[in-house]
Parts: sequence; C-alpha cells; structure tokens
Amino acid sequence: MTNPLPVGATIGILGGGQLGRMLAVAASRLGLKVHIFEPGANPPAADLAHAVTTASYDDHTALTAFGRSVDVITYEFENIPTAALDLLETLAPIHPGRQALATSQDRLTEKTFLQGLGLQTAPFADVPDATALDAALDSIGAPAILKTRRMGYDGKGQARIMARTDAAAAWADMHGAPAILEGFVDFSHEVSVIGARGQDGSVACYDPGENVHDDGILRTTKVPANLSASQRTDAVLIAARVLNALDYVGVMGVELFVTSNGLIVNEIAPRVHNSGHWTQNGCTICQFEQHIRAVAGWPLGDGARHSDVIMENLIGDDMDKLADYAKTDAAIHLYGKAEVKPGRKMGHVNRIVRA
Amino acid sequence: MTNPLPVGATIGILGGGQLGRMLAVAASRLGLKVHIFEPGANPPAADLAHAVTTASYDDHTALTAFGRSVDVITYEFENIPTAALDLLETLAPIHPGRQALATSQDRLTEKTFLQGLGLQTAPFADVPDATALDAALDSIGAPAILKTRRMGYDGKGQARIMARTDAAAAWADMHGAPAILEGFVDFSHEVSVIGARGQDGSVACYDPGENVHDDGILRTTKVPANLSASQRTDAVLIAARVLNALDYVGVMGVELFVTSNGLIVNEIAPRVHNSGHWTQNGCTICQFEQHIRAVAGWPLGDGARHSDVIMENLIGDDMDKLADYAKTDAAIHLYGKAEVKPGRKMGHVNRIVRA
Repeated sequence: MTNPLPVGATIGILGGGQLGRMLAVAASRLGLKVHIFEPGANPPAADLAHAVTTASYDDHTALTAFGRSVDVITYEFENIPTAALDLLETLAPIHPGRQALATSQDRLTEKTFLQGLGLQTAPFADVPDATALDAALDSIGAPAILKTRRMGYDGKGQARIMARTDAAAAWADMHGAPAILEGFVDFSHEVSVIGARGQDGSVACYDPGENVHDDGILRTTKVPANLSASQRTDAVLIAARVLNALDYVGVMGVELFVTSNGLIVNEIAPRVHNSGHWTQNGCTICQFEQHIRAVAGWPLGDGARHSDVIMENLIGDDMDKLADYAKTDAAIHLYGKAEVKPGRKMGHVNRIVRA
Repeated sequence: MTNPLPVGATIGILGGGQLGRMLAVAASRLGLKVHIFEPGANPPAADLAHAVTTASYDDHTALTAFGRSVDVITYEFENIPTAALDLLETLAPIHPGRQALATSQDRLTEKTFLQGLGLQTAPFADVPDATALDAALDSIGAPAILKTRRMGYDGKGQARIMARTDAAAAWADMHGAPAILEGFVDFSHEVSVIGARGQDGSVACYDPGENVHDDGILRTTKVPANLSASQRTDAVLIAARVLNALDYVGVMGVELFVTSNGLIVNEIAPRVHNSGHWTQNGCTICQFEQHIRAVAGWPLGDGARHSDVIMENLIGDDMDKLADYAKTDAAIHLYGKAEVKPGRKMGHVNRIVRA
C-alpha cells in the first residue's frame, strides 16, 4: 500500500446526502471514521458518521476546524465553492483532485478536455451571452440543448431548443449564467462506466451498466448493459483514459451514449454515481468502498461482477410501493430521508437477476 | 407485512459490539434508526448509531429512558440480566422473546429443551455442586467437559475432565457456579445453520456453513459445508423446528456436530452469529438485515446464496496481516476497535470462491 490511512483514521466528506451516507458505511467496514460537512440540518449521512459539522461553505472557521480534524477530504458532489477548496487544500489532501473538479464543474471545460483526449462528445459551442447563442445555433443547428456551464444536475439548468423561435426563451431560462449549446446526439441507449483509480495509479472499472432516465432523472440501471464485446472494451478504455489523464484518485462515473458511430461521452462525474449503486449487490467490493479505498490510499478491491443486477431508484411516491418491494427478492437501500417530495431520491432497490 | 415498523422508527439494541455495529448498518438500509444501550465506553456500534446510551444494566433510570425512546428492542448477546428484561418488556416489545433467552442462557435448560423436541444432544448431567459431579461422572464417564450453566462464550467457563483425577480442579474452575457435565461427542466436523423467523411465522434458513474453531474461538466458516444432500436438509429442518418451538422472531445460530449417527445439536444462540458473517458477501440479504427485518415486522428477505464463501476471523495480531489482506480479493469487515488484544475479534474477511 502507498502510505495507506491506518485503521481509526478519519475521512472528511463534503456533503451529507445519500452518497455520503453510503460512503460512511463503506468506510466503517475498513475501520475508518467519517466526518461529514454539510450545510443542511439532519443530513442522511449523519446517523452513520462519527462526526457531523453543520455549517455553510463560506464559514471559514467551521471549514478550518473540519479540515484540521480529518486525514483526507473527499466529496459526494462536484459543485463545491472554489474558495472553500482553496482553504481546505491547505489543511488536508483532497481526492479526487482539483483538476478533476475544475474539469467536471464546467461543461465547456469538460467537453474541451474530452475532445483533447481524442474522445467523441456531442457537438457544442460556447454561449457566454445572448448574441453568442445566435452564432452557436448557426454552427450546431436545431434541435439542440442550452445548458448552464456550471451547477447543473438531474436535468436542471437546461432548456431544449427545437427551433430558432425557442432561442430567446431558452436563454431567459439560463438567468444570465454562461451557457453551452449542445447538439442532439442520435443514440440508441445510454451506458455508464464506474471507474476507479488508486493512489498507486492502478485502474479498475466495473462492468458498464445501461441507464434509463425519465425527465432527466435516472430511473434504472441494468448490468450487463446491451453492448457488444468491442463496445464493452471501448467503454472501459474510455473511462481509463479519462482517469489517467486527470491523475485521478477515487471513483468516477462516465456516462456514454451508444451510437452507430461509436461511444460518445455525455458527461463525467468525479464521485460515486447513482448508476453504480448496483455494485452493492453485484460485486464483492461496491463503488462506495472502492472510493474509500482509493482516497485512503488502500489497494483497490475486487470489483468483479458475480451477478446480473437491475437497480431501480425509489423517487418520491415510489415509497408508497415499499411494502410491496419488501415482499420481493429485491435488496432495499433507503436513505433515511424523513420527508417524501416529488422527484426526491428516497432510496433504491437492487434485484439480482438469476439465470 | 404484519404491522411493520415504518421508515424512521427506532430499534433499540442491547449491546454495542461488532454485532450491534453490523445490525446498525443493516437497519440504515431499511431507513430505520438504531439506539444502542451499552455499559462500555466507545463501543464499536456507536459510530453507526443514531443514539447511544452508556449505562449499566442495573441503571433503571437509563433503561427506562432507553425503552421509551425505541419502538422495539433486540440484543446482540444473550446474557442480559433478568431484572433489566423485566423492566424493558413493560416499555417495548423484545425480539427474540423471553423464552428463547431463558432457554439459551442456561445450558441445562437448553439441552433439556432440545431433547424434548426429539433432537440429539451430547449426553449431559446436572452438576449443582461438587457431590453431584461424582455422580455425573458415573453416568457420563470421562473424558467429558464441565461447563457453567450460564454466561459461557468463546470457550470461557469450561474445564475438560480427561480422567477422574481432573474432577476437583475442574469443579474449582467453576468458582461455585452451577454447572453441567457434557460427554464428548465423536464428530467429524461442526456446521451451523443461521435461521430466521418472521413475525408472520415464516422461516428462512441460510445454507449451512462449516466451522473451524481454535482454542474455543471460531476461526473460519466456509459455505457450502461438507454435507450430503440429506444432511443439509436435516440441518435446516432442525433449525426450523427450534425456531417454531420457541415462537421465535429474529435470527438464530444453531451449531451442529456431524456424526456417523446423524446431526447433534451443540448449542443455539438467539442472535446473529459469527458463523453467519459470510452472508454479507454470499447473499443478497445478510443475516444482520434478516434479523432487523424480523424484529421490525418486515417480510424476511432473499437469503439465497449466490456465491461460495470462506469467512475468516481477524483475531488479535491477525490485524498485522491487514495490508496483505487488502491486496487480495477478500471483502474486509473491521469493527472499529481501537486496541488490539490477544483473542479479541477485530474483524473478519469474506472471500468469494470462484469456480
């Protein structure tokens, strides 16, 4: 092991949602403690953490105390304010590193980076202002999607432009934020690779999963994905190329569109990923433990898939079906959220598919 | 579901060791909170619990507050003082119930109960005092083992009698406690069945595991056990008979000796069991979740075995080999204990055996 964190060491996690919660459970298996930093009260991760700091990302006193109390810092979401990172990186190592965050926080930077690696992306154009949108539509054409460069997730901060006449309304939806225009990609389905890279540079990728979204939110992931052997290899090689190029440490989600012209990278997420939740019941070492192993400097674990799995998110009123799910052979994973809201991810179920 | 606990309800657990810790993780998956009651400071379960009460079992104020704060009570060890149970059962349901505890807390009661079900046990005799030991040796013969009736675990409170001349020293080892003399059983190996029974009376048993002990402490469990198909069926039927006879709710460990005259019940443990840790990586629903489901009134989960597994305990200095284990394909489960002591269970590893 390359200077691995010893048993009893503490991992600081920025964000206390369900991803932080499941990271905390994985850390406990390795005898590591977790300190959660989260602005919101009663975050899902709190019950499973050794310590919780409730403070905002501009509270430098709280950030400093947090940074001093931990041995390494990681995060469950990528939109962390830069000033907070500037402070924290003086106190403890941050994994994955700043380059991965800077790349994935900005859709324009991300797509430029991916094309620089020789990977395919959707056609795109920079739209810093309303005037630029007109020129972007000239080059990309319609239909297209206008997206804010930063802070987008689960389909938020996006507007479809089916024809030129939609342009003004789409720009208004950006509320003045710098944007990027992306051309439509004619894809048959979406897959994702959950890849991991250790501090020693070793790379391990899980089998690609096939994702179905509804209204911009992931509904299901199934493994194995519908891919040819060569597509499967391509998918894993793409993820490995991205991980290596960023000198990455931790788990990353890489979303890919499957097209007749090969695999097109949709986006990368520098963290554990909803489309990797199937690994909890399909592999010996799940994505959460793999991430903890990487950021703690441990060797990566055995991510071989022992079973076929269908993962289904429980969103909002899906919780009404919980009693029925409990009667099936599904593995239930709830996030401990007190209040059910429309569109809110409340949990997920993993179902092993037997031959 | 028979009146299942809703998401957000709290399970009280007596005992904060590694079993309580892993029960807390399982409860979190079902959106349930856990309140740990434990006399010792900084118990392994504390980091993963919603609440922890540090108090002794004769602190009736603390017990009362604990009992009022939870929706159901369970436990990770069977030697709970009777007065504490008398108080707690007025405040919340206790699962598994008093009959299971009373039976398993006392080796004489346990063996009498098992024989009453028509099951085979080692030959035994009541040894309330030194005089009785002489008569017991007349009926059982030597070699035999003298054991305290209560409070024994991991080989403690036991003395071997290889010949009559050992009798006085063996009795002295009991420190005046009522004892039971057990005849030696000529067995080829030990297996155990981890069985579960729900509040609706449904029973689900995991595949039997084969156990190897060293110095009275479990070292390894492997599944599948070396059993014929009919022995496997017998083992599961024995466990089911015990579960039903006790109107049991929860997970139970049933240890069996394999002999040329059939299966002989060694002992039953009314709780999750070290020899069931393999289920964490061999099944969709592990023994810890199965126990939580049962005591919470949920349907039992899918305990089918998807993989062959070898579980190995990490005891004392075994922790020196942690860096090596981390490089293998083993799943590591540590208990967060700060101090390594000889004979102390620090964690375990599960290794999936691929064909």
